Amino acid sequence: MDCIFCKIAKKELESNIVYENNNIIAFLDIDPISEGHILIIPKEHYLDIEELPKNIINEIIELSQKIVKSLKEIYKPNGYSIMQNGGEFNDISHFHLHIFPRYQNDGFGWTCEDKKFNVSKEISDKIKNALKNLRSK
Amino acid sequence: MDCIFCKIAKKELESNIVYENNNIIAFLDIDPISEGHILIIPKEHYLDIEELPKNIINEIIELSQKIVKSLKEIYKPNGYSIMQNGGEFNDISHFHLHIFPRYQNDGFGWTCEDKKFNVSKEISDKIKNALKNLRSK
Repeated sequence: MDCIFCKIAKKELESNIVYENNNIIAFLDIDPISEGHILIIPKEHYLDIEELPKNIINEIIELSQKIVKSLKEIYKPNGYSIMQNGGEFNDISHFHLHIFPRYQNDGFGWTCEDKKFNVSKEISDKIKNALKNLRSK
Repeated sequence: MDCIFCKIAKKELESNIVYENNNIIAFLDIDPISEGHILIIPKEHYLDIEELPKNIINEIIELSQKIVKSLKEIYKPNGYSIMQNGGEFNDISHFHLHIFPRYQNDGFGWTCEDKKFNVSKEISDKIKNALKNLRSK
Protein backbone atom coordinates (compact mmCIF):
# COMPACT_ATOMS: atom_id res chain seq x y z
CA MET A 1 0.00 0.00 0.00
CA ASP A 2 1.54 3.25 -1.12
CA CYS A 3 -0.91 5.70 0.45
CA ILE A 4 0.72 8.81 1.92
CA PHE A 5 -2.00 9.18 4.57
CA CYS A 6 -1.47 5.57 5.71
CA LYS A 7 2.22 6.47 6.01
CA ILE A 8 1.40 9.58 8.03
CA ALA A 9 -0.83 7.48 10.32
CA LYS A 10 2.02 4.98 10.82
CA LYS A 11 4.59 7.78 11.31
CA GLU A 12 6.54 6.62 8.28
CA LEU A 13 6.03 10.13 6.96
CA GLU A 14 6.33 13.27 9.05
CA SER A 15 3.43 15.60 9.57
CA ASN A 16 2.45 18.45 11.90
CA ILE A 17 0.07 16.58 14.17
CA VAL A 18 -2.52 18.45 16.23
CA TYR A 19 -4.39 15.45 17.68
CA GLU A 20 -4.16 11.68 17.68
CA ASN A 21 -5.85 8.70 19.32
CA ASN A 22 -6.06 4.99 18.46
CA ASN A 23 -8.44 5.49 15.55
CA ILE A 24 -7.88 8.93 14.09
CA ILE A 25 -5.19 11.53 13.53
CA ALA A 26 -5.38 15.24 12.64
CA PHE A 27 -2.55 17.26 11.08
CA LEU A 28 -1.84 20.39 9.06
CA ASP A 29 -2.60 20.24 5.34
CA ILE A 30 0.70 20.77 3.51
CA ASP A 31 -0.97 23.02 0.93
CA PRO A 32 -3.28 25.11 3.15
CA ILE A 33 -6.21 27.21 1.92
CA SER A 34 -5.57 29.38 5.01
CA GLU A 35 -3.23 29.16 8.00
CA GLY A 36 -4.49 26.47 10.37
CA HIS A 37 -5.99 24.27 7.61
CA ILE A 38 -6.35 20.82 9.17
CA LEU A 39 -7.10 17.34 7.85
CA ILE A 40 -8.69 14.68 10.04
CA ILE A 41 -8.24 11.11 8.82
CA PRO A 42 -9.02 7.62 10.12
CA LYS A 43 -5.76 5.71 10.70
CA GLU A 44 -7.11 2.78 8.73
CA HIS A 45 -7.48 3.19 4.99
CA TYR A 46 -11.04 3.95 3.85
CA LEU A 47 -12.06 5.90 0.76
CA ASP A 48 -15.60 7.20 1.33
CA ILE A 49 -17.62 8.35 4.31
CA GLU A 50 -20.12 5.49 4.27
CA GLU A 51 -17.28 2.94 4.67
CA LEU A 52 -16.23 4.39 8.04
CA PRO A 53 -17.40 2.52 11.16
CA LYS A 54 -19.88 4.54 13.22
CA ASN A 55 -17.54 5.04 16.17
CA ILE A 56 -14.80 6.40 13.90
CA ILE A 57 -16.94 8.86 11.93
CA ASN A 58 -18.36 10.06 15.24
CA GLU A 59 -14.86 10.58 16.65
CA ILE A 60 -13.93 12.53 13.52
CA ILE A 61 -16.96 14.84 13.63
CA GLU A 62 -16.64 15.43 17.38
CA LEU A 63 -12.98 16.32 16.89
CA SER A 64 -14.01 18.72 14.11
CA GLN A 65 -16.17 20.56 16.64
CA LYS A 66 -13.16 20.99 18.94
CA ILE A 67 -10.92 22.02 16.06
CA VAL A 68 -13.37 24.73 14.97
CA LYS A 69 -13.46 25.98 18.57
CA SER A 70 -9.66 26.04 18.73
CA LEU A 71 -9.23 27.74 15.33
CA LYS A 72 -11.72 30.42 16.40
CA GLU A 73 -9.77 31.02 19.61
CA ILE A 74 -6.44 31.30 17.80
CA TYR A 75 -7.29 33.06 14.55
CA LYS A 76 -10.55 34.92 15.28
CA PRO A 77 -11.69 34.23 11.69
CA ASN A 78 -14.97 35.40 10.18
CA GLY A 79 -15.97 31.78 9.84
CA TYR A 80 -14.74 28.36 8.76
CA SER A 81 -15.42 25.74 6.13
CA ILE A 82 -15.52 21.98 6.40
CA MET A 83 -15.38 19.84 3.30
CA GLN A 84 -14.91 16.27 2.25
CA ASN A 85 -14.58 15.09 -1.33
CA GLY A 86 -15.48 11.50 -2.10
CA GLY A 87 -14.99 8.95 -4.82
CA GLU A 88 -12.90 10.15 -7.77
CA PHE A 89 -12.69 13.60 -6.18
CA ASN A 90 -10.59 12.31 -3.30
CA ASP A 91 -7.10 12.94 -4.69
CA ILE A 92 -5.37 10.81 -2.03
CA SER A 93 -7.90 7.91 -1.98
CA HIS A 94 -7.77 7.92 1.85
CA PHE A 95 -10.75 9.58 3.58
CA HIS A 96 -9.92 13.07 4.86
CA LEU A 97 -12.03 15.88 6.27
CA HIS A 98 -10.82 19.44 5.61
CA ILE A 99 -11.33 22.19 8.19
CA PHE A 100 -9.99 25.69 7.66
CA PRO A 101 -10.54 29.23 8.94
CA ARG A 102 -12.27 31.66 6.60
CA TYR A 103 -12.04 35.43 6.26
CA GLN A 104 -14.03 38.06 4.40
CA ASN A 105 -12.43 38.54 0.97
CA ASP A 106 -10.22 35.47 1.42
CA GLY A 107 -10.75 34.66 -2.25
CA PHE A 108 -12.11 31.24 -1.38
CA GLY A 109 -15.26 30.20 -3.15
CA TRP A 110 -17.11 27.51 -5.01
CA THR A 111 -17.53 27.60 -8.76
CA CYS A 112 -20.42 25.77 -10.38
CA GLU A 113 -21.77 25.41 -13.87
CA ASP A 114 -24.43 27.98 -14.64
CA LYS A 115 -27.03 25.26 -15.02
CA LYS A 116 -30.33 24.67 -13.27
CA PHE A 117 -31.13 21.27 -11.85
CA ASN A 118 -34.55 19.90 -10.99
CA VAL A 119 -35.93 20.00 -7.46
CA SER A 120 -39.12 17.98 -7.05
CA LYS A 121 -41.09 15.57 -4.90
CA GLU A 122 -40.21 12.81 -7.40
CA ILE A 123 -36.53 13.33 -6.62
CA SER A 124 -36.95 13.53 -2.84
CA ASP A 125 -39.23 10.46 -2.89
CA LYS A 126 -36.61 8.48 -4.77
CA ILE A 127 -33.97 9.38 -2.18
CA LYS A 128 -36.37 8.88 0.73
CA ASN A 129 -37.13 5.35 -0.51
CA ALA A 130 -33.47 4.51 -1.05
CA LEU A 131 -32.83 5.59 2.56
CA LYS A 132 -35.74 3.48 3.81
CA ASN A 133 -34.42 0.44 1.95
CA LEU A 134 -31.00 0.91 3.59
CA ARG A 135 -32.58 0.96 7.04
CA SER A 136 -34.63 -2.17 6.41
CA LYS A 137 -31.61 -4.15 5.17
CA MET B 1 -37.26 34.26 14.78
CA ASP B 2 -37.44 34.62 11.04
CA CYS B 3 -35.17 31.76 10.03
CA ILE B 4 -36.31 29.86 6.94
CA PHE B 5 -34.72 26.61 8.13
CA CYS B 6 -36.56 26.87 11.47
CA LYS B 7 -39.74 27.28 9.42
CA ILE B 8 -38.89 24.24 7.30
CA ALA B 9 -38.24 22.23 10.49
CA LYS B 10 -41.65 23.30 11.88
CA LYS B 11 -43.39 22.65 8.53
CA GLU B 12 -44.37 26.29 8.25
CA LEU B 13 -42.52 26.26 4.94
CA GLU B 14 -42.71 23.43 2.43
CA SER B 15 -39.65 21.44 1.43
CA ASN B 16 -38.86 18.18 -0.30
CA ILE B 17 -38.03 16.07 2.72
CA VAL B 18 -35.92 12.91 2.38
CA TYR B 19 -35.56 12.06 6.08
CA GLU B 20 -36.75 13.30 9.43
CA ASN B 21 -36.60 12.31 13.09
CA ASN B 22 -37.09 14.22 16.36
CA ASN B 23 -33.79 16.09 16.13
CA ILE B 24 -32.86 16.48 12.46
CA ILE B 25 -34.40 16.87 9.04
CA ALA B 26 -32.94 16.44 5.53
CA PHE B 27 -34.39 17.97 2.37
CA LEU B 28 -33.50 19.01 -1.17
CA ASP B 29 -31.54 22.25 -1.59
CA ILE B 30 -33.72 24.62 -3.63
CA ASP B 31 -30.71 25.79 -5.65
CA PRO B 32 -28.87 22.51 -6.24
CA ILE B 33 -25.26 22.17 -7.39
CA SER B 34 -26.35 18.85 -8.92
CA GLU B 35 -29.56 16.82 -8.90
CA GLY B 36 -29.97 15.17 -5.52
CA HIS B 37 -28.24 17.98 -3.57
CA ILE B 38 -29.38 17.58 0.04
CA LEU B 39 -29.15 19.68 3.18
CA ILE B 40 -29.19 18.12 6.65
CA ILE B 41 -30.11 20.47 9.50
CA PRO B 42 -30.80 20.19 13.22
CA LYS B 43 -34.43 21.14 13.94
CA GLU B 44 -33.28 23.52 16.65
CA HIS B 45 -31.53 26.70 15.61
CA TYR B 46 -27.73 26.54 15.92
CA LEU B 47 -25.21 28.45 13.84
CA ASP B 48 -21.89 26.60 14.02
CA ILE B 49 -20.83 22.97 14.34
CA GLU B 50 -19.33 23.27 17.82
CA GLU B 51 -22.68 24.45 19.22
CA LEU B 52 -24.42 21.21 18.27
CA PRO B 53 -24.97 18.65 21.04
CA LYS B 54 -22.94 15.46 20.51
CA ASN B 55 -25.97 13.24 19.86
CA ILE B 56 -27.26 15.61 17.17
CA ILE B 57 -24.00 16.07 15.27
CA ASN B 58 -23.57 12.28 15.39
CA GLU B 59 -27.07 11.76 13.98
CA ILE B 60 -26.28 14.24 11.21
CA ILE B 61 -23.01 12.61 10.21
CA GLU B 62 -24.46 9.09 10.35
CA LEU B 63 -27.33 10.23 8.14
CA SER B 64 -24.80 11.73 5.73
CA GLN B 65 -23.27 8.26 5.37
CA LYS B 66 -26.65 6.81 4.40
CA ILE B 67 -27.38 9.71 2.06
CA VAL B 68 -24.09 9.20 0.22
CA LYS B 69 -24.94 5.50 -0.12
CA SER B 70 -28.39 6.35 -1.50
CA LEU B 71 -27.13 9.01 -3.91
CA LYS B 72 -24.57 6.53 -5.24
CA GLU B 73 -27.29 3.92 -5.80
CA ILE B 74 -29.58 6.36 -7.61
CA TYR B 75 -27.19 8.56 -9.61
CA LYS B 76 -24.04 6.44 -10.00
CA PRO B 77 -21.94 9.61 -9.73
CA ASN B 78 -18.13 9.75 -9.97
CA GLY B 79 -18.08 10.93 -6.38
CA TYR B 80 -19.69 13.33 -3.96
CA SER B 81 -18.85 16.38 -1.89
CA ILE B 82 -19.86 17.29 1.64
CA MET B 83 -19.45 20.85 2.85
CA GLN B 84 -20.45 23.07 5.72
CA ASN B 85 -19.79 26.78 5.91
CA GLY B 86 -19.67 28.38 9.34
CA GLY B 87 -19.79 31.80 10.90
CA GLU B 88 -20.32 34.64 8.45
CA PHE B 89 -20.17 32.17 5.58
CA ASN B 90 -23.42 30.52 6.63
CA ASP B 91 -25.87 32.50 4.52
CA ILE B 92 -28.93 31.22 6.42
CA SER B 93 -27.43 31.41 9.95
CA HIS B 94 -28.92 27.97 10.74
CA PHE B 95 -26.41 25.07 10.64
CA HIS B 96 -26.69 23.01 7.43
CA LEU B 97 -24.55 20.29 5.92
CA HIS B 98 -24.48 20.08 2.11
CA ILE B 99 -24.19 16.71 0.35
CA PHE B 100 -24.28 16.45 -3.43
CA PRO B 101 -23.31 14.00 -6.18
CA ARG B 102 -20.27 14.92 -8.29
CA TYR B 103 -19.37 14.09 -11.89
CA GLN B 104 -16.25 14.43 -13.97
CA ASN B 105 -16.33 17.83 -15.69
CA ASP B 106 -19.28 18.98 -13.59
CA GLY B 107 -17.71 22.43 -13.43
CA PHE B 108 -17.70 22.37 -9.65
CA GLY B 109 -14.52 23.46 -7.95
CA TRP B 110 -12.88 25.55 -5.30
CA THR B 111 -11.18 28.83 -6.04
CA CYS B 112 -8.50 30.12 -3.71
CA GLU B 113 -6.17 33.03 -3.66
CA ASP B 114 -2.84 32.20 -5.21
CA LYS B 115 -1.08 32.70 -1.92
CA LYS B 116 1.09 30.40 0.16
CA PHE B 117 0.41 30.00 3.86
CA ASN B 118 2.80 28.74 6.49
CA VAL B 119 2.83 25.15 7.65
CA SER B 120 5.01 24.56 10.70
CA LYS B 121 5.39 22.84 14.04
CA GLU B 122 4.76 26.23 15.71
CA ILE B 123 1.31 26.34 14.13
CA SER B 124 0.41 22.73 14.91
CA ASP B 125 1.67 23.14 18.49
CA LYS B 126 -0.55 26.18 18.98
CA ILE B 127 -3.60 24.23 17.77
CA LYS B 128 -2.58 21.11 19.71
CA ASN B 129 -2.40 23.14 22.91
CA ALA B 130 -5.72 24.87 22.28
CA LEU B 131 -7.30 21.41 21.83
CA LYS B 132 -5.67 20.15 25.04
CA ASN B 133 -7.01 23.15 26.95
CA LEU B 134 -10.52 22.42 25.68
CA ARG B 135 -10.29 18.83 26.91
CA SER B 136 -9.02 19.83 30.32
CA LYS B 137 -11.86 22.35 30.82
